[in-house]
Amino acid sequence: MNLLSRVFTYELPTEIAFGVHAVNELPKWIDSLKGSKVFIVSDPGVAQAGILDKVTSPLAEAHITFHTFTEVEREPDVKTIEIATAEAKAFGADLVIGVGGGSAQDAAKAVAVMVNNEGKITQYAGLNHIPNPGLPIICIPTTAGTGSEVTIWTVISEKDYHRKFGIGGKYLAPTLALCDPALTLSLPGPMTAATGMDALTHALESFVNKATQPISEALSRESMRLIAKSLRKAVVQGDNLEARYDMLLASTIAAMAFNPTRLGLAHALCMPLGGKFKVPHGTANAILLPQVMQFNFVGNLEKFKEIAEIFGENTAGLPLREAAELSVKAIKKLNQDIGIPAGLREYGVTEEDLDYIAKEGMESGNVWVNPRKPTLEDLKEIVRQSI
Amino acid sequence: MNLLSRVFTYELPTEIAFGVHAVNELPKWIDSLKGSKVFIVSDPGVAQAGILDKVTSPLAEAHITFHTFTEVEREPDVKTIEIATAEAKAFGADLVIGVGGGSAQDAAKAVAVMVNNEGKITQYAGLNHIPNPGLPIICIPTTAGTGSEVTIWTVISEKDYHRKFGIGGKYLAPTLALCDPALTLSLPGPMTAATGMDALTHALESFVNKATQPISEALSRESMRLIAKSLRKAVVQGDNLEARYDMLLASTIAAMAFNPTRLGLAHALCMPLGGKFKVPHGTANAILLPQVMQFNFVGNLEKFKEIAEIFGENTAGLPLREAAELSVKAIKKLNQDIGIPAGLREYGVTEEDLDYIAKEGMESGNVWVNPRKPTLEDLKEIVRQSI
Repeated sequence: MNLLSRVFTYELPTEIAFGVHAVNELPKWIDSLKGSKVFIVSDPGVAQAGILDKVTSPLAEAHITFHTFTEVEREPDVKTIEIATAEAKAFGADLVIGVGGGSAQDAAKAVAVMVNNEGKITQYAGLNHIPNPGLPIICIPTTAGTGSEVTIWTVISEKDYHRKFGIGGKYLAPTLALCDPALTLSLPGPMTAATGMDALTHALESFVNKATQPISEALSRESMRLIAKSLRKAVVQGDNLEARYDMLLASTIAAMAFNPTRLGLAHALCMPLGGKFKVPHGTANAILLPQVMQFNFVGNLEKFKEIAEIFGENTAGLPLREAAELSVKAIKKLNQDIGIPAGLREYGVTEEDLDYIAKEGMESGNVWVNPRKPTLEDLKEIVRQSI
Repeated sequence: MNLLSRVFTYELPTEIAFGVHAVNELPKWIDSLKGSKVFIVSDPGVAQAGILDKVTSPLAEAHITFHTFTEVEREPDVKTIEIATAEAKAFGADLVIGVGGGSAQDAAKAVAVMVNNEGKITQYAGLNHIPNPGLPIICIPTTAGTGSEVTIWTVISEKDYHRKFGIGGKYLAPTLALCDPALTLSLPGPMTAATGMDALTHALESFVNKATQPISEALSRESMRLIAKSLRKAVVQGDNLEARYDMLLASTIAAMAFNPTRLGLAHALCMPLGGKFKVPHGTANAILLPQVMQFNFVGNLEKFKEIAEIFGENTAGLPLREAAELSVKAIKKLNQDIGIPAGLREYGVTEEDLDYIAKEGMESGNVWVNPRKPTLEDLKEIVRQSI
């Protein structure tokens, strides 16, 4: 029992409030955090869909002073963070709220810390390099996948250099995750599918990796169980509130699981795929995941067997190895059912890019926790099979 | 789906460090909490068993200034808290460490807050009535059951009045739970059994109650799974480190589950049983639990069926009601196997005490979350069948 030989830690720096119409309680939470000048970070899609109004209406009714910044683009650039931070300072913000998917929330977290720190946030890439605490942060997810509302991470790009950076640390943990499944009801099917597969990749990669521990495992199991039950339904019945509830919960719980464990090869490889080829984060993970599982399952047959069973495969009477390998089939079927693109070729990735993607992937901190140690050639093969 | 109609919250104010020989890292944690004068609260049993030495040796080696108070009795009295608080103030403590079972840890938590608050702690009974934050607290459990190391609760008695009080709030949450299964290796079988059943009662009562939610449910499941696997072994093979590991983990995880949900009728009734009849907390819960389950199971057949399955009952082909009721049988067998006393009569409880116990139990905040609403007569019947 490997666990007997190490000390693991678990902490949850973020308080979670979760429920249908939870967003109506926002003024109460702002009050408890002593917020008087609230800086709201969001993106144009959220604003146009009318979701931002559902967040700001209760504030207007409660006569809370706020300022909105809705210019966050997908995979936010460090320049956007600089512009938003300047606006937040000029406004005199004492609390930051992020409303949106991973990009808007990550941008909000970045702005909240950069109000109190010098330079560019990308210079603090890695874990715990930010010197000063930032403003209190409330994250309000409008997609079910990123988990950014409870993670200590923000992902910011420098598009001029085709790079994405992960910046992590306790100062980047939201103070409150305000999770309202009703806000995800209008999310289109393809985005529901991609973000849902991101949540699954979080839960699954944490569950099988070498850094996991029993608290994360329990949370991963619950997250995967909810996804197995409700992702297909959330994609094909977008207005099904119970399915939306399950998926948002799965996303938040998966992030509670992986915060202390990191992830695996899918997340290592999706960084260059997002940075250079603009493959959306969830889609990249979804496409890569079956090949990563096929590579990894020999590293933990019992866990992959459990994954197969959670996703409804019948393992009765099968040898352990065969039962474990069924997990790969289960995830391939899930990808097909929810319309995940068949391969990376749709994003212009070719055989000639394998070297670059594998080398960049190998730099990720997610590689060393993976349940099977990969060579550069292994990573190239995983991406080749994902084209 | 009842959950769709309410907003639930989850938070974990305590960081957890868990592992064999984790206690050797204590100086590092004290340093990170800026502790320079450490007040250690423990009990005579822990001191005599040499367990306290395992905590203080690393401190002495690291030249950390500390003072020990080892006079905590079982079910600590408010007078003990006053004496210890005066000692902590005289010593100039800036950090409090609790080492022991629930009593020593609860006393440490009480001392840490009373250093900065006026009067008697029992005057703050209930939730969030303590005005000022206390000193940082590190809890080091030496039994696997109380979960006090991660709860926001402390239970303090006023023995002059035969009363026990629950005092709760964020200021009572330990800053760090330092959990070292090796410290529980010498716990005698009967105490292992009683405290282990306390952990099970936490996990189970939270799992089925009306205030539970998916995060707590996932944690309860993991806790029950570990207890089903390892409680018998921990009782009959006290030196089995893996079983001790599982049980300490089960205890900590159960407390993470019930912190936001409260418990149920067993915990309501064990307060007067502890206060007036001196039935040890875990033993009272263990004796009551099957009768409480028999009363409750009609309130949530699916959940009780799941409990039956976690504890190894074969529910295949059974009607739901029968499968659910098997959970009661499973817990009765567990009680027998680990030597829990057959009834409360061993502690002098008679039919004449039913009125008093039921009335006191009915006052508990744990009653309203119970999955079946009880009358006073119901509570009397549960206790009658437990005599």
